[in-house]
Amino acid sequence: MFEEKKAEWLRIAESLKPTLRREIVRPVSGMPDHALAENESFVLDFGNHFVGHLTLKLSSKGSHPDAPAWLAVKFCENNRELNESLDEYRGWISKGWVQQEQAHIDVLPAELHFSRRYAFRFVKIDVLALSSKYRLVIEDAFAEVTTAADDGALMPLTGDEKDIAIDQVALRTLRNCMQDVFEDGPKRDRRLWMGDLRLQALTNSVTYRNFDLVKRCLYLFAATADREGRIAACLFTEPKVEADDTYMFDYSLFFIPTLLQYAQATGDQAAMDDLLPLALQQLALMDVQFDPETQLIRDCDQLGWCFVDWALPMNKQFCAQAIWIFCAQAALKIKADPALEEKILLRREAARKHWYDQERRLFVSGAKRQISWASQVWAVLAGIVEGADAAACLDAAAACPNAVPMVTPYMMHHYVEALCRVGRKKEAQQVIRDYWGSMVGHGADTFWELYNPKNPDESPYGSPVVNSYCHAWSCTPAWFLRSGILKEGT
Amino acid sequence: MFEEKKAEWLRIAESLKPTLRREIVRPVSGMPDHALAENESFVLDFGNHFVGHLTLKLSSKGSHPDAPAWLAVKFCENNRELNESLDEYRGWISKGWVQQEQAHIDVLPAELHFSRRYAFRFVKIDVLALSSKYRLVIEDAFAEVTTAADDGALMPLTGDEKDIAIDQVALRTLRNCMQDVFEDGPKRDRRLWMGDLRLQALTNSVTYRNFDLVKRCLYLFAATADREGRIAACLFTEPKVEADDTYMFDYSLFFIPTLLQYAQATGDQAAMDDLLPLALQQLALMDVQFDPETQLIRDCDQLGWCFVDWALPMNKQFCAQAIWIFCAQAALKIKADPALEEKILLRREAARKHWYDQERRLFVSGAKRQISWASQVWAVLAGIVEGADAAACLDAAAACPNAVPMVTPYMMHHYVEALCRVGRKKEAQQVIRDYWGSMVGHGADTFWELYNPKNPDESPYGSPVVNSYCHAWSCTPAWFLRSGILKEGT
Repeated sequence: MFEEKKAEWLRIAESLKPTLRREIVRPVSGMPDHALAENESFVLDFGNHFVGHLTLKLSSKGSHPDAPAWLAVKFCENNRELNESLDEYRGWISKGWVQQEQAHIDVLPAELHFSRRYAFRFVKIDVLALSSKYRLVIEDAFAEVTTAADDGALMPLTGDEKDIAIDQVALRTLRNCMQDVFEDGPKRDRRLWMGDLRLQALTNSVTYRNFDLVKRCLYLFAATADREGRIAACLFTEPKVEADDTYMFDYSLFFIPTLLQYAQATGDQAAMDDLLPLALQQLALMDVQFDPETQLIRDCDQLGWCFVDWALPMNKQFCAQAIWIFCAQAALKIKADPALEEKILLRREAARKHWYDQERRLFVSGAKRQISWASQVWAVLAGIVEGADAAACLDAAAACPNAVPMVTPYMMHHYVEALCRVGRKKEAQQVIRDYWGSMVGHGADTFWELYNPKNPDESPYGSPVVNSYCHAWSCTPAWFLRSGILKEGT
Repeated sequence: MFEEKKAEWLRIAESLKPTLRREIVRPVSGMPDHALAENESFVLDFGNHFVGHLTLKLSSKGSHPDAPAWLAVKFCENNRELNESLDEYRGWISKGWVQQEQAHIDVLPAELHFSRRYAFRFVKIDVLALSSKYRLVIEDAFAEVTTAADDGALMPLTGDEKDIAIDQVALRTLRNCMQDVFEDGPKRDRRLWMGDLRLQALTNSVTYRNFDLVKRCLYLFAATADREGRIAACLFTEPKVEADDTYMFDYSLFFIPTLLQYAQATGDQAAMDDLLPLALQQLALMDVQFDPETQLIRDCDQLGWCFVDWALPMNKQFCAQAIWIFCAQAALKIKADPALEEKILLRREAARKHWYDQERRLFVSGAKRQISWASQVWAVLAGIVEGADAAACLDAAAACPNAVPMVTPYMMHHYVEALCRVGRKKEAQQVIRDYWGSMVGHGADTFWELYNPKNPDESPYGSPVVNSYCHAWSCTPAWFLRSGILKEGT
């Protein structure tokens, strides 16, 4: 059905591969002021978060080096990582992601160039071995850093100082995730995920406005759809462009609002015409997951069948139904379709009827009628609930201490959007200041993949050692602050 | 005095830089027969000792790799090293010499090429991290190995099977130390030392006969002599040719017999004429260390002032005097010099008078009149003692349980040579079979830097983890077995 188009879609995607902007940066502090002996260590601070390749210019002092210098080098996105160790790590995310190297230098002076790309502000260097006859001199340290973002495209933001600080960190987050594709995080997974792309594209539209990169990513997803046309949750570009074998209900559907948003921002009708059938196919493919009698989506035990948030205990049934409606509405905005409109009405009605708890004024999910914040947020965003009831939903979650909480800035984005939707702009702004602002308070140069203000060390991976501290889905404060959505009356 | 010649000497040395012979070798066993999971490990066995660069061809099985592969790779000259750990190492030789690497592979399939040269028979690979979604496939493993030795130049050796086995290991030792220069050991220090060169050149003369490499090394030492003309104990060739700031009494003097031996083997009178003044300068420079009254060399507390053997408690005074005589005799063989001949007579007589213990029929050394095997060996080699007294010396050491023992194959070479000198050819042969032969019995592919049959784990460095198992100075059984010196009547 789409097979014959894929080669052309891939060609379009590759023709839009960005030429990365390159810059040489040097540490602002931490350069050793003396020649180093074995077992000494030091921490270079580059002053901000960067993505790129480090080079150390090394020489020696004393006798001619009579043994190799052996260094351990650790790249850290923030200073909390400096003292973290892998020794006790037993989590399920690969510890291969921890940014560390060892190097032997046989001949000094030498230029030690790290061919692997890292995301870092800090670089910790341990001198594991020298010999007693010489010391190691760090003549220079610099990094060639890259981004597909053009700082010159940014409009200045005025207003509250704290908001400006939050915006700066949000911009840096997006900027450093903009490489050959919109990566989810330049430390980990360095990969194009649909859920992240949707929020990156949104924020990009009011900041760096690199729409070619958005178009490239849409076409990459199109080119890697499976034989039925199903869009993967994420894809790889190396060694060749290939979909991951991970499919998530919500991530496939988010192709639709991402395409709509791109077309609205650019007026690129050709791309819209080219990709619309594939976008609509995502809705069609999900139809089998609905019970034709009740028009309710079938629940699923499989972990991650529908992402919503990094909350393992969360039942996703209600959110999946809401997200289908949300994305179907986006499709309607692209092209009128009375049959789809009818289906949306039925499924919205079914959701309301089956999962709305009249007494508590909130939505539940699954056979056990679980209460979560996410369900309320998506009920609002999908228009399953409106007006006073919508606001009441959000209040009800807050009033329910057992409600499954929100875990990620990704979910928090949707919460803030829901607050805007119900007209609570001030509260939305306050959530941004409290939640993202408190990461800034913790010294964040870029926003983190995961943040629980009550437990900043929380990780769904078993240890924060593999957490990503520059994560695309956390960049949306810049969208809220720059799109005008926070202004009353919008 | 020699300064104006150094540029030309360096040019000659560099013009003789060998083109290394390169060969691709593959493991004879140990290739994994299945795709590897995290925490698996395997040991490649290349079947013999090699020096070169490893390449691993890697791919994956399962889903597209969603996290880097992280490997630890350890290169081992022998299988005892496989289980050694650096964790408890507190020795004084740099642990930077331990042959280990870590590598992250972001994209699979990949060709992982190790740019650092290693000396190894075994390569242990630990899969430190993958992800649960894929396994690692080792498609191929090979090494490009190098040597400046030409196996085609070798004459076959006939005779006793054990001797042939010892010869093979000796040849391999020399061969793998022959690189851009005669290295002392391709694991450690990878460097040109005069003491090793002398024995390598000797063995080379009856085996690979790469006399250009000997000439290159003589000229490198000449070009890096200090302003007085003193030859360094060792030198570096990277990043440029430069002497180490280590000078040892015996190693400087050994330039003379090494030059003599080269000229005798090649008839290269031009090189002899060019370098003889520098060679004789070594004798002249050492004159100040002799007491003009007694004609005895002054003792010295400084560790390593005169090497002799890796025996820290050994007093070197007597051996230094004997080695001066040994080298002065070599100078006399090059060119008659009545004044030098007179000096040798005086110093030989002084040594005999002052240090010969008439009762025990052996030589002592230092103020504390220490007894060592080395003193007896060098007394014989320098002709300080001759005939029945010479043989008696060697017996007396054996009869003295407190005699400082011999530690290295380097010292054992001189012992075997001394046995030959006193006509005990059978005993010499037996020592080779017992000492070097027992390393072969331990599975040695190349002869070790250090070997104490009673304690194979002995190391002067605090741990065998930094020992070298292919060490130039241990290659001389091939010289003994091929030069004819072991034959009665020679």
